[in-house]
Amino acid sequence: MYSFNNDYSEGAHPRILQALVETNLNQEVGYGLDSYSKKAIELIKEKMNRSDVDVHLLVGGTQTNLIAISAFLRPHEAAIAVNSGHIFTHETGAIEATGHKVVTVESKDGKLTTEHIQKVLDEHTDEHMVKPKLVYISNSTEIGTIYKKNELRSLRDFCRKHNLLFYMDGARLGSALCSTENDVEFVDLPDLFDAFYIGGTKNGALMGEALVICNDRLKEDFRYHIKQKGGMLAKGRVLGIQFYELFKDNLFFELAQHANNMANRLQVGLIEGNIAFMTDSPTNQLFPILPNSLIEKLQEKYTFIIWEKINKDASAIRLVTSWATEEEQVEAFIRDIK
Amino acid sequence: MYSFNNDYSEGAHPRILQALVETNLNQEVGYGLDSYSKKAIELIKEKMNRSDVDVHLLVGGTQTNLIAISAFLRPHEAAIAVNSGHIFTHETGAIEATGHKVVTVESKDGKLTTEHIQKVLDEHTDEHMVKPKLVYISNSTEIGTIYKKNELRSLRDFCRKHNLLFYMDGARLGSALCSTENDVEFVDLPDLFDAFYIGGTKNGALMGEALVICNDRLKEDFRYHIKQKGGMLAKGRVLGIQFYELFKDNLFFELAQHANNMANRLQVGLIEGNIAFMTDSPTNQLFPILPNSLIEKLQEKYTFIIWEKINKDASAIRLVTSWATEEEQVEAFIRDIK
Amino acid sequence: MYSFNNDYSEGAHPRILQALVETNLNQEVGYGLDSYSKKAIELIKEKMNRSDVDVHLLVGGTQTNLIAISAFLRPHEAAIAVNSGHIFTHETGAIEATGHKVVTVESKDGKLTTEHIQKVLDEHTDEHMVKPKLVYISNSTEIGTIYKKNELRSLRDFCRKHNLLFYMDGARLGSALCSTENDVEFVDLPDLFDAFYIGGTKNGALMGEALVICNDRLKEDFRYHIKQKGGMLAKGRVLGIQFYELFKDNLFFELAQHANNMANRLQVGLIEGNIAFMTDSPTNQLFPILPNSLIEKLQEKYTFIIWEKINKDASAIRLVTSWATEEEQVEAFIRDIK
Amino acid sequence: MYSFNNDYSEGAHPRILQALVETNLNQEVGYGLDSYSKKAIELIKEKMNRSDVDVHLLVGGTQTNLIAISAFLRPHEAAIAVNSGHIFTHETGAIEATGHKVVTVESKDGKLTTEHIQKVLDEHTDEHMVKPKLVYISNSTEIGTIYKKNELRSLRDFCRKHNLLFYMDGARLGSALCSTENDVEFVDLPDLFDAFYIGGTKNGALMGEALVICNDRLKEDFRYHIKQKGGMLAKGRVLGIQFYELFKDNLFFELAQHANNMANRLQVGLIEGNIAFMTDSPTNQLFPILPNSLIEKLQEKYTFIIWEKINKDASAIRLVTSWATEEEQVEAFIRDIK
Repeated sequence: MYSFNNDYSEGAHPRILQALVETNLNQEVGYGLDSYSKKAIELIKEKMNRSDVDVHLLVGGTQTNLIAISAFLRPHEAAIAVNSGHIFTHETGAIEATGHKVVTVESKDGKLTTEHIQKVLDEHTDEHMVKPKLVYISNSTEIGTIYKKNELRSLRDFCRKHNLLFYMDGARLGSALCSTENDVEFVDLPDLFDAFYIGGTKNGALMGEALVICNDRLKEDFRYHIKQKGGMLAKGRVLGIQFYELFKDNLFFELAQHANNMANRLQVGLIEGNIAFMTDSPTNQLFPILPNSLIEKLQEKYTFIIWEKINKDASAIRLVTSWATEEEQVEAFIRDIK
Repeated sequence: MYSFNNDYSEGAHPRILQALVETNLNQEVGYGLDSYSKKAIELIKEKMNRSDVDVHLLVGGTQTNLIAISAFLRPHEAAIAVNSGHIFTHETGAIEATGHKVVTVESKDGKLTTEHIQKVLDEHTDEHMVKPKLVYISNSTEIGTIYKKNELRSLRDFCRKHNLLFYMDGARLGSALCSTENDVEFVDLPDLFDAFYIGGTKNGALMGEALVICNDRLKEDFRYHIKQKGGMLAKGRVLGIQFYELFKDNLFFELAQHANNMANRLQVGLIEGNIAFMTDSPTNQLFPILPNSLIEKLQEKYTFIIWEKINKDASAIRLVTSWATEEEQVEAFIRDIK
Repeated sequence: MYSFNNDYSEGAHPRILQALVETNLNQEVGYGLDSYSKKAIELIKEKMNRSDVDVHLLVGGTQTNLIAISAFLRPHEAAIAVNSGHIFTHETGAIEATGHKVVTVESKDGKLTTEHIQKVLDEHTDEHMVKPKLVYISNSTEIGTIYKKNELRSLRDFCRKHNLLFYMDGARLGSALCSTENDVEFVDLPDLFDAFYIGGTKNGALMGEALVICNDRLKEDFRYHIKQKGGMLAKGRVLGIQFYELFKDNLFFELAQHANNMANRLQVGLIEGNIAFMTDSPTNQLFPILPNSLIEKLQEKYTFIIWEKINKDASAIRLVTSWATEEEQVEAFIRDIK
Repeated sequence: MYSFNNDYSEGAHPRILQALVETNLNQEVGYGLDSYSKKAIELIKEKMNRSDVDVHLLVGGTQTNLIAISAFLRPHEAAIAVNSGHIFTHETGAIEATGHKVVTVESKDGKLTTEHIQKVLDEHTDEHMVKPKLVYISNSTEIGTIYKKNELRSLRDFCRKHNLLFYMDGARLGSALCSTENDVEFVDLPDLFDAFYIGGTKNGALMGEALVICNDRLKEDFRYHIKQKGGMLAKGRVLGIQFYELFKDNLFFELAQHANNMANRLQVGLIEGNIAFMTDSPTNQLFPILPNSLIEKLQEKYTFIIWEKINKDASAIRLVTSWATEEEQVEAFIRDIK
């Protein structure tokens, strides 16, 4: 059985493990103040040409979202997201558990528009309703689509105009930035968002997300929030070492590129087999629509998620590639489809 | 400079890293449902001779405390702890952030007694005050002391009689169980507590705590709470692999024994130097009282925490040993003291 | 200007004020343990033929909803409501502020069905999503509709079968029960719901809602939750005196009947004027669709809420009658429409 | 039986009830935006010579404290209070339920000093502990003592210097301001505090507290917090009418003066009977120490709280007078003591 279940089926890229092994017995201070974390943070800031942002290394995506959003919002303020947004669907009410509502809008392609936000603002006009304050997007989205630079600029400008915070969940940011359809550069990010995170877990790290806070007003006392919500690792070095390795030679982008290449290969193969897709994804998640009989056959050799029933005979499945996806498995899958 | 700052200055025991390397490219399902986590959990249950407890592998101590306590309590219920309890002092209000008060009692040796609890119950008699419900202890305590079996039994019986939950923070459980003064066995634990955790971070793991839930009424839906509070690792395997390694050949206890041996050696050396201690610790944290002038000298070669000012000329410092503490550094420290 | 804005534009029914005046200088104990509150509670239980329910007198609707729901749910559990449900739309995220998500379904008539609930259950299957646990309905609904007894029984049975709690927001329960289309009796309520509240504020009291807890498992320690959330009045007598007056001679039902009569008269008059309605309401809220030009004219003499734009020339307005609505104003309004 | 239990044993001062009766059928808008509330708020601002403060009329003390404190603090920030502070002892963890720790210091006279605060600041130095941010005092205190103007100024200056918010719980502010030992004027208050509340419930109203927000940074969106926490009355007029009556002719101060006069009379009588006091209270709460045998006798004719056991033969009781206390009952009590 080969898994196309997700992009976290394996451990870490070997170079990352190697770095953990090599530094293992060096003594360091705890709680993210170690020299590796500091170096990693400096490196990330350098790669973005921005010395003025704050970077915090956290363990996981849900954790990062809940710490950031609860730190940024006052009790009556809410987040805005599309109805497929991860914070709304698959974080077990983590944001609500910190006291904040997530206001959603319907979106077919998983992307948020200024029209969506305007609609929410129009409906929330007084103190009997929550006050929408933070705009949440994922890039790539939960269904594989990505934002173009002009779309992000438009959202950013709208947010600034309406005094909203603009936040990006970057669990799969690597894949988004390395997509053939992408025109956003890594250095563009701090100018686009009030805060965002760079996902490590789904791009070759054992675990780890780097939260970047660009808006000065959101920076103060942030480490208190990390500690209070249980997100401060005693051995913070584990995150620092990994992110340093990911960014010192562009490993982060190479791994994302590999994941995308494997997805592209799959996509081409599926298209050649006349297979349609539920969404038009240029990243490492594909949603082909297959006859149920074929799905059953494939399940004998591969694992993947059945995403959505399309009709009584066919369903969309989700295929996810990663830094670790083997080319021969992709080719075998294509052969098996045909 | 050599650090006696804490027991998390290094990475992981090399065998743990080795296990991570060896399993690295095997594909596994996510979120703690992988085969390594399952094996580790089975192993821990076997070592306790208890197939009926639930074990969950979590990332850190504050996280474990806040997830467990918020899952176990209703909104009006409170935890009881000594005033040096970690949840009260050094978790940035993590328990309060989930809505629960921590009611404290003064304790000189860091340990809680039934008299303490009775006093709290006597003072909390109606709905104008919180309802004390969960008794929190740490073993070893934050100042190095440990509980004897009869003390734990007495607390357990008192809790059962008064319908209180009995919870142990085992961040340094290994050191407690391997102390020369300890008479509690690993297999005794499930019978003593409603829930407790086995600390990995401070005993040789990169990170990780194994929460053991013994009381059936506390088990239901626990994974929801882990996810909601941001504690569910996508690559849960990272915890499973580590705990399996710690328990398959008693590495967990060997590492704690080494930490204790190093502390014992330090203690003997300090006593020979006629140095007094703030607390009588039989575990891996020592609190010798030293002249400030000597402290300054020592700081040229060693790092440690200055715990408390004793008088204008002397202070208690904290020396912590670990699985990684080097014997020659201990000997050197003793020589330097003398 | 005469107001059809809402059913809380005036103070209290004069008999209620009279009762407050007459009892004013009698000394009573505080916090809802006074003799008036006890008598009121006994009376309500008698009127329902149920000595085994618990009744708590609270100040307002949002307060009652948030105290009850947060007391009833564990942290990972969520409420289910229709998208027009008061807890979802007009309570400023009060439920989310206690940590719980409100999962919604679309409903045109403001009513929830078992199909709605089944859909939510089908979509919430594991610990990555919240666990739906409490079913929230309003009767009458936010748009004036009511539930028939067979609908409530069907919902109740479904809830019991799926281990869900069934909760009714009765802010306008009086109007629902006194509707010509209603077939639910007051005595039926405790058998239908795990908990519900009887709204006083919108039916002639200065303020006050009587929460009835029918499910034994929800009763324990409830007064702690009232106090913790700021809902326990020092002079709880104020609520007791009012509810006693409302129920000792069926004033509660007489007032609701008057409100409905006034609404019926309005409705008949509007229908005679060939005016259509947005919803088919048999209670004290009407939603006629009027030309914008007529609305402007009416606003010179009456106040009401413009509920929803229907097209560029017409809007639905909300007309609310109450225990205090004057018949001559209703007649005048009908004349002005024609 | 005559009650000296508390200052909320009766209803409201008759003039207040009269005002409710007279305005009863006037139609008003809801949620505190009615003309009575507006007039009351303007009046309070006038009496303080401050047009720039914000005033919100709320229902009860615990509610006011929890709404204000949770609105003012960020998640990692804590309140500082003495160990007898109402928010720490008798609000069922209301502040913690909003996520915030209350850090306490020991105080014999129920009053907080700058030394107390400095001690807390010294102990809270990094992100492993909460960040003390709001200084909470009660005036008069829970044990009847009051603050002098120089004490309040000293606390205020200390708070400003250390970027702390200074908040006063004024549940018994009337009695404090009308005490013979008081030198603080009503107009001084806005300059002393970032926010405080004027207690109505314990000074002649049916219910009601007027929260005054002086610090501009705390004002924004405050009505959202009131609504979210269930504190916004649909018939906000009920609070407006009462506060207008309390302040239009100084009724507020007359009622407090009466309560104090009755307490003074009691105190003089008790001192003449050679009775000692637990605290030196110049306000409407007295804590005489009486032989247990005498207490039992008195309990045949009076109700009061037994506050604290002093030794095996004597206890301190609490006697509370109010706007409604009858002089003949006070004289009778004194006679019975002698």
